[in-house]
Amino acid sequence: MTEEDALRYLTALGDGIVPLDVDAMARARARQARLTKPPGSLGRLEEIAVQIAGMTGQERPSVARRAVVVMAADHGVTQEGVSAYPAEVTAQMALNFLRGGAAINAIAGSVGASVTVVDVGIASEVSHPALLARKVAPGTANMAAGPAMTQEQSLSAMVVGAETLEALVDEGLDLVATGEMGIGNTTAASALTAVMTGRSPREVTGRGTGVDDAQLAHKVAVIEQAIAVNAPDANDPLGTLAKVGGLEIAALAGLILAAARRRIPVLLDGFIASSAALIACAWRPLAREYLLAGHVSVEPGHQIILEHLGLRPLLSLEMRLGEGTGAALALAVVDAALRAHDEMATFDEAGVSDR
Amino acid sequence: MTEEDALRYLTALGDGIVPLDVDAMARARARQARLTKPPGSLGRLEEIAVQIAGMTGQERPSVARRAVVVMAADHGVTQEGVSAYPAEVTAQMALNFLRGGAAINAIAGSVGASVTVVDVGIASEVSHPALLARKVAPGTANMAAGPAMTQEQSLSAMVVGAETLEALVDEGLDLVATGEMGIGNTTAASALTAVMTGRSPREVTGRGTGVDDAQLAHKVAVIEQAIAVNAPDANDPLGTLAKVGGLEIAALAGLILAAARRRIPVLLDGFIASSAALIACAWRPLAREYLLAGHVSVEPGHQIILEHLGLRPLLSLEMRLGEGTGAALALAVVDAALRAHDEMATFDEAGVSDR
Repeated sequence: MTEEDALRYLTALGDGIVPLDVDAMARARARQARLTKPPGSLGRLEEIAVQIAGMTGQERPSVARRAVVVMAADHGVTQEGVSAYPAEVTAQMALNFLRGGAAINAIAGSVGASVTVVDVGIASEVSHPALLARKVAPGTANMAAGPAMTQEQSLSAMVVGAETLEALVDEGLDLVATGEMGIGNTTAASALTAVMTGRSPREVTGRGTGVDDAQLAHKVAVIEQAIAVNAPDANDPLGTLAKVGGLEIAALAGLILAAARRRIPVLLDGFIASSAALIACAWRPLAREYLLAGHVSVEPGHQIILEHLGLRPLLSLEMRLGEGTGAALALAVVDAALRAHDEMATFDEAGVSDR
Repeated sequence: MTEEDALRYLTALGDGIVPLDVDAMARARARQARLTKPPGSLGRLEEIAVQIAGMTGQERPSVARRAVVVMAADHGVTQEGVSAYPAEVTAQMALNFLRGGAAINAIAGSVGASVTVVDVGIASEVSHPALLARKVAPGTANMAAGPAMTQEQSLSAMVVGAETLEALVDEGLDLVATGEMGIGNTTAASALTAVMTGRSPREVTGRGTGVDDAQLAHKVAVIEQAIAVNAPDANDPLGTLAKVGGLEIAALAGLILAAARRRIPVLLDGFIASSAALIACAWRPLAREYLLAGHVSVEPGHQIILEHLGLRPLLSLEMRLGEGTGAALALAVVDAALRAHDEMATFDEAGVSDR
């Protein structure tokens, strides 16, 4: 696909996103009021049911068919020593996902979600029958020295994400949870967050997989340098994504746009996935309506993004692993919300006295 | 069972509770450090795994066999007009649970837990093949006019809870989630909380199923009167339970003691269940070690109990329904924590580079 074709495809997706279905939401709200419980007593579970009714246009939606999509890619900025782990861990962990040995496999298993692993830019060759091989480039360039991606690479990665989502929808999908793997990607997410929210790199940057104080100061300096070198503009979200983003982040931004277009609820994971949402929503604000924040991680930038997007996290369990683990875990809450909404008896059906 | 026999049975249970197994916890902690993730990156999920290792004595515990136990009973204090719903709703909702139409059925279903409904003191006759009929009395007496229960009734209800738990353990049980139903029981829970934590009734009393401002002020006045009339003593937790508690709360206190004795993790639901924990832990402090707080409800007294017991809730979703719904939902978090702990590959097994 040429750069022009990619932009045309993505623009059509983005422009095709419709607002939530307020009629379905009103019907869902009316149903909630008839269920055998005091009004409002299921708290945020009630909100979730109404919101997903709006996304899907169904009074009693289901999330029976659920997938975690893990976008994996490498980051040239790891050359600057910004991560506690060596870059080869991206490929090693991708294989670990494919063999079922990672946290995301266990947690997705516990909530009955499939796990799709996509190589959108792992630096080395990874081979596994279940891997979706869609490598755009063997990792990004070092954003401290120049743009992380060309505009064409960034758009191609967005297309990979969008096409992955559309293929899953065509097979049958009710909800997607975002996952990612990429050593160095909290550095890219921090840079994106600083640019798009107007906060300083120091405010939005955390310890990622676990750097110490000196390494954290160095990481902030690298992000400041990347922003100085590339001069990204918050009014140009796709340009910002190419300059200081990542291939897996671009893929998730594309996936979010496609999910919104197809009216599939998106359960966001942590900081990286939310930085992708920041780009998608800056470019096409209606995409925001299809997002649920699975959790809030301990990365300081994550809270800042959630506030910027006006999203309230479902869980707060001090997780900071990524992979989609927080989103997959939150799927249990969404599932319970929709099952209660669908399966509960009304006051009339159960013969229970209302107040 | 005579009052003396009941106290002897409960004392044997309470005195048989052992501290957490620190060796199993150390082994679980060592395993967490070898799993393919940055140390600590699963946040509270790691803590849960270590804590349940301590409770069960197993390095890699499982919560595959999980039950929600719903204790149902009525409250004489409803004569004072403290609830938004009529008292007959206790029996109606018990039937709704038994027929599978309530929120707890949907949520327990979504996390694969069984639901056991126990009539420990419903005012009217309820009949259903699946109901555990263990009625101690047809509801409590009005605590605004005298003790809610005799000491014998309260101990008998505790025995019902303990025996229910022991029967489930004998059938095979890895974790119990506490549930309850009883119109008027936030009034009893508020009274217990005020006495046992030393806070004023105004501070610990909330809107329950949904009373308005004037009704809330009346509810506080009724609780103040119940405390004045009965003069409960925080140094006598079992006496306090009888004076201003409830049959389902006593049953849950007994269930908690038996679970701790049998080294079964207890996932606490909301305000009512936590008021039972307050009594159990005041009487036998080691019981505290076997508790996990599933969620924090919007009832102000619930947060106060959790702080008093030093428990951090897993979820905060503005729920205030009871029935065990918050605990059942938190089961998904506990399940994910233990599955990650058990199923994940170590760095060595997966061939992933450690830092």
